[in-house]
Amino acid sequence: MSEIDKLLDQHGTAIKEVYLDWENGSKLDKEVLDAMIPFYLDRKFGNPAITHRFGWETYDFYLKAKKTIAKPLNVDPQSLALTHSFTESNNLAIKGIVKANKKKKKIIVSEVEHLSVIHSAKSLFEQGIKVDIIPVSNDGVVNLDLLRERIDDDTLLVSIQAVNHEIGTIQPVKEAFEIVKDKNEEILFHTDATSAFGRLPLDYGKLEVDLATISSDRILGPKGIAGLYVKEGTKIKSLYEGQLSVEVLSPDVENSPLLAGFVKAVEIHFDQFEKIKDHTSRLRDKLLYGFQTTIPRTNINGPQGINRAPDNVNISFLGCEGEALTVESSMKGIYASSGSACTSRVLMPSHILTAIGRKPEEAHGSLLMKITRLNTEEEIKYVLETMPKVIERIRSITGGIEL
Amino acid sequence: MSEIDKLLDQHGTAIKEVYLDWENGSKLDKEVLDAMIPFYLDRKFGNPAITHRFGWETYDFYLKAKKTIAKPLNVDPQSLALTHSFTESNNLAIKGIVKANKKKKKIIVSEVEHLSVIHSAKSLFEQGIKVDIIPVSNDGVVNLDLLRERIDDDTLLVSIQAVNHEIGTIQPVKEAFEIVKDKNEEILFHTDATSAFGRLPLDYGKLEVDLATISSDRILGPKGIAGLYVKEGTKIKSLYEGQLSVEVLSPDVENSPLLAGFVKAVEIHFDQFEKIKDHTSRLRDKLLYGFQTTIPRTNINGPQGINRAPDNVNISFLGCEGEALTVESSMKGIYASSGSACTSRVLMPSHILTAIGRKPEEAHGSLLMKITRLNTEEEIKYVLETMPKVIERIRSITGGIEL
Repeated sequence: MSEIDKLLDQHGTAIKEVYLDWENGSKLDKEVLDAMIPFYLDRKFGNPAITHRFGWETYDFYLKAKKTIAKPLNVDPQSLALTHSFTESNNLAIKGIVKANKKKKKIIVSEVEHLSVIHSAKSLFEQGIKVDIIPVSNDGVVNLDLLRERIDDDTLLVSIQAVNHEIGTIQPVKEAFEIVKDKNEEILFHTDATSAFGRLPLDYGKLEVDLATISSDRILGPKGIAGLYVKEGTKIKSLYEGQLSVEVLSPDVENSPLLAGFVKAVEIHFDQFEKIKDHTSRLRDKLLYGFQTTIPRTNINGPQGINRAPDNVNISFLGCEGEALTVESSMKGIYASSGSACTSRVLMPSHILTAIGRKPEEAHGSLLMKITRLNTEEEIKYVLETMPKVIERIRSITGGIEL
Repeated sequence: MSEIDKLLDQHGTAIKEVYLDWENGSKLDKEVLDAMIPFYLDRKFGNPAITHRFGWETYDFYLKAKKTIAKPLNVDPQSLALTHSFTESNNLAIKGIVKANKKKKKIIVSEVEHLSVIHSAKSLFEQGIKVDIIPVSNDGVVNLDLLRERIDDDTLLVSIQAVNHEIGTIQPVKEAFEIVKDKNEEILFHTDATSAFGRLPLDYGKLEVDLATISSDRILGPKGIAGLYVKEGTKIKSLYEGQLSVEVLSPDVENSPLLAGFVKAVEIHFDQFEKIKDHTSRLRDKLLYGFQTTIPRTNINGPQGINRAPDNVNISFLGCEGEALTVESSMKGIYASSGSACTSRVLMPSHILTAIGRKPEEAHGSLLMKITRLNTEEEIKYVLETMPKVIERIRSITGGIEL
């Protein structure tokens, strides 16, 4: 028996299981998987760059697939590059732009961007790139006055997320975009819309951002496929070298079954956009206010009301430690992450929570939950009944460290 | 009706279909897909970095999965990094080594490496990297005398493929490795084993290469997951920035369903290794010798006999043009690629075929076929009956240009 087998054996199985860690890993519903299966077993698995029937069929499917995926962004399907992950898209947006535009040397990002954005920008230090990091308010909103101040003649690119992935803050992307373009139309604007896609109505055809990241797994599509919208005419270079193929910005990314799953997830999600939003925001509010009223010493992280993503819950339980929170919850069949998914194994506090002014103890004692269309009222009821006992137990064990 | 729909409509459906373009795109058999489905729908889709039941189960699965995949390489499972594709693995092997080892500035590669190797090395020009390209024989075998000559004190890395992906040449990797290490043990040795994995017995535990690339889709596993073996202690840096996760060399690569498919493909393939080799080499020989005896003016590209990968067919039909070859074959339900998969849409002759001394016309007039365990005797019979008519028709249309 391995160490982990022993751990799982001791853990046992809870009477009920509620998965709320969608931010870090997601399953598919059967409808999405069913859309993928023919591409795995039967047809359109050919390389779309090859001139034979299987290639043409795949190529035809690619063109149609991109139309479907580009529609909720209202952009030209041909401007949507496929990648393997939002991490790759963000790396490509930052590094690919720097690779193709050598004159200007400053990148501006917010303090609460995903690490794939912040670290991509910082990694270019040796190439003379300066990174200016814009702070946020206590709700995680990017400080627009500071953004305006920091833009200068050397600014090449500004990258501001559309929604924060941990605390659900909806960012003022339109305002940020206008500030940037008012200063200088040539400055490129990237938005990491990974956590906005499917949560907010987006229209990058109207708001003419230069680059936008999206990902299949954020709307219950399969992991392993994502996108980077690159406005026509934008100079950008691929980060990988490889054979010439249909996708020029990420060689060897073509993957019909994953793309078929992405397409089906888009169809399902955007057909029911308002319904999903209503469902998740109702359950979100039940969780947020339920926790606050039944559990003492809690802090909601991120904004409340309409400035918060409809499905995001992030709450600090003072006097609790992060790993204890996820482990004790898990014993009761409730699966969520703590502090930050990014840092959960290394026990560093989330950079998002420290950016909004949380002390390390508060950051560690936080739980992140995301609600999807696959979660039910009944599940949320179970979570609300169970979590007060979980928190009480943790606090009784640790002595409920006073903060 | 789109242009492609019209094309497909005119194309019609052949009475029989034989897919031989496995080098460029592959389907799964049901057994592999069945192994993936529970990971898509049910369990172990959690992020392996998160401390809850779903995370631990996934982490446990990851450890076991890597053991299975590392076994046919006879290497430490912990030294196997997961990536999204062999293209990423090759980019990582070349650029990641240069990023972590700044002193020496020369990389040696063979002329017949995959473009992801050659172009990765060349792309480092601005960082002062010199690339030395070793020519090959008419059979595509790397010239070892030249390799020995070209190694100098400035050499950081040598990258020599194990098997050529287009013409099936089995390279003298052991000899190349020994030449390199005899000169200087510190020089790193990478082998792109993408096209050797599953075709040849490999033992990198014994032959202590520093880095080796493998890929799931080459043994009928799903596309979107691949590996880079990195010998313990080798200094290498990730090319992407992202959140900290279980896989340190490629952030956000964790994908349980694809990994489950990779594992199942490894199990099936290596359980039947000898049987598959016998099956494919018998069918390969039927094709190679059948074409030579029934079709005038052919040239086999690559070596014959035991120095050729057991499942590779590459043959030039003189007086034929590549696109005509794949299109006319497709009309008869035979799917293969031409010249080079890498270059099929741009109509540049394959760099492999020009490296072995083929004239551009010969390179264009070539067909690449790969045989798998899913191909049957009957299919090969159909191909041998049909191709003479296909070639005759092409030659009659084009006037069979004399070369």
